Amino acid sequence: MSDGADAIVVLCGGVGAARFLDGLVRVVDPASVTAIVNVADDAEFHGLHVSPDIDTVLYTLAGLVDAERGWGIRGDTFRGLAALERYRRDTWFLLGDEDLATHIRRTELLRSGMPLSAVTDELRRALGIGARIVPATDARQSTRVRTPDGWLAFQEYFVRRRAADIVLEVRIDGGGMAAVGVLEAVESAAVVIVAPSNPIVSIGPILEVEGFREALRRRARPVVAVTPIVRGAAIKGPAAEMLRGLGHDVSAVGVARLYADFLDVMVLDERDADLAALVAKTGIRPVLAQTIMRDADAKEGLARAVLAAASWRGAR
Amino acid sequence: MSDGADAIVVLCGGVGAARFLDGLVRVVDPASVTAIVNVADDAEFHGLHVSPDIDTVLYTLAGLVDAERGWGIRGDTFRGLAALERYRRDTWFLLGDEDLATHIRRTELLRSGMPLSAVTDELRRALGIGARIVPATDARQSTRVRTPDGWLAFQEYFVRRRAADIVLEVRIDGGGMAAVGVLEAVESAAVVIVAPSNPIVSIGPILEVEGFREALRRRARPVVAVTPIVRGAAIKGPAAEMLRGLGHDVSAVGVARLYADFLDVMVLDERDADLAALVAKTGIRPVLAQTIMRDADAKEGLARAVLAAASWRGAR
Repeated sequence: MSDGADAIVVLCGGVGAARFLDGLVRVVDPASVTAIVNVADDAEFHGLHVSPDIDTVLYTLAGLVDAERGWGIRGDTFRGLAALERYRRDTWFLLGDEDLATHIRRTELLRSGMPLSAVTDELRRALGIGARIVPATDARQSTRVRTPDGWLAFQEYFVRRRAADIVLEVRIDGGGMAAVGVLEAVESAAVVIVAPSNPIVSIGPILEVEGFREALRRRARPVVAVTPIVRGAAIKGPAAEMLRGLGHDVSAVGVARLYADFLDVMVLDERDADLAALVAKTGIRPVLAQTIMRDADAKEGLARAVLAAASWRGAR
Repeated sequence: MSDGADAIVVLCGGVGAARFLDGLVRVVDPASVTAIVNVADDAEFHGLHVSPDIDTVLYTLAGLVDAERGWGIRGDTFRGLAALERYRRDTWFLLGDEDLATHIRRTELLRSGMPLSAVTDELRRALGIGARIVPATDARQSTRVRTPDGWLAFQEYFVRRRAADIVLEVRIDGGGMAAVGVLEAVESAAVVIVAPSNPIVSIGPILEVEGFREALRRRARPVVAVTPIVRGAAIKGPAAEMLRGLGHDVSAVGVARLYADFLDVMVLDERDADLAALVAKTGIRPVLAQTIMRDADAKEGLARAVLAAASWRGAR
């Protein structure tokens, strides 16, 4: 884990976080960045361990990602998945042929007894990624969602049923201890950034890891969050519907309140300038920025704005 | 397992056996056929259990096989394998994207605790195959080959080094009991056919399964073998070089001698008519046939000839 004065820790879900990281590593030394990634969406498909958020971060930072979709590998094919249908397997969770190689290798290493954090480190190094990528926990953690049809495993809700159900309750099962070095990194980093990810099912499980919230609260230096909600809607995914279903304000203010015990700065989108005063009332300093990451320039611009909001001075 | 008067058991290696079976199931009810298949070539690649001979039989009988090569799936691609190279994996054992689905599903079922015989039965049913396909044993059995460079695992010798080494010795490790029903099927079948497969590394390991040779010897009804050697050469694979290296006659006579304790009839190729007298001397009845399976007609013709040699009267 990168330590010292310039270390940057980013709490990450999938697509939004990966795009943010992609901008960040263009403006700071990638070796100074540690991405702590949600694993409560992890699931086993066909006996293979799939870590959707880690994969999205891996593929994005390796330059392999399908930028349109935000996940999976650009130009990947689905012949293996079609062949699994011959064996009457459910194939609603899309796994491309190149993507499968990641799950095959991860599963092989996990079965050899390696913890997920060491496996992930091996994968990111093999892909030539300079930033550290660390699962929040090596323990099995899994999100379940209660809908009017009952409890659903996260991928069942999110992928199979296309996040179309009303969310009445979210529960994070399992979890436990943070992966080795995670809490120390959180405490010692110059900046901790909460990526523009779903606060309930992406950042939420990371915060539930033993000692994680406390480590954030103990920090003397800033914790900065980037809102995943702009003008009452999520850029990607079901964050807005989830916040609404769970009775939270569907805005940067609602998100700031969920982080209020450890957050110093909330980066709002410029189009939400009217919310700045409400954020300030919660004791969190509002900062306005262009948060929509349409292209590389926008990603870099957001990274610089977030670092400036944290008074971090090392950007290139 | 198919029992009764019309049951046919075929001892099988890979390509030659699969082609023979393909003809056989065209001239008899596939449900009367039980293929007992070598698993001593099985190996784990990338944490996945690969059963090369079973796969060749599965793909051939399912009409999926790449007929040119004799193995793998027609038109398959290799994107997953290329992606495994990103993770610095050895990829000399070619695994296609569709093919990987078989290994993924097999491995998933094996890890759930199912024996290989039950797994194989599930796969062949899913592929709509009427013949039973049974691994010789559910125990791990593995062939090693001693060369001037030392001992090699079978796939190392066969695929990675392209069977180019001189074979000084062959050892079958592991093994143990036959899969459930195998010995009973061997004893009770109307005909047992030894497919035109490598007698050392394909049929040899089957014969080493506990009680297998004895079950063959106990049979009252005929055991018929089809020579894998024609005019001193193997149709496919390293059988000729292996026989030579191990000091056996590189001919149907040499093969017949390896099976002498249980074999009743040896089907020679018409072009080896001069060997008939030598085969007869070993106490085995020689029968001449066209053994080269160039096309569907030739496969069917060979199946009919073999059944006729066994005085089996049920062919359609």
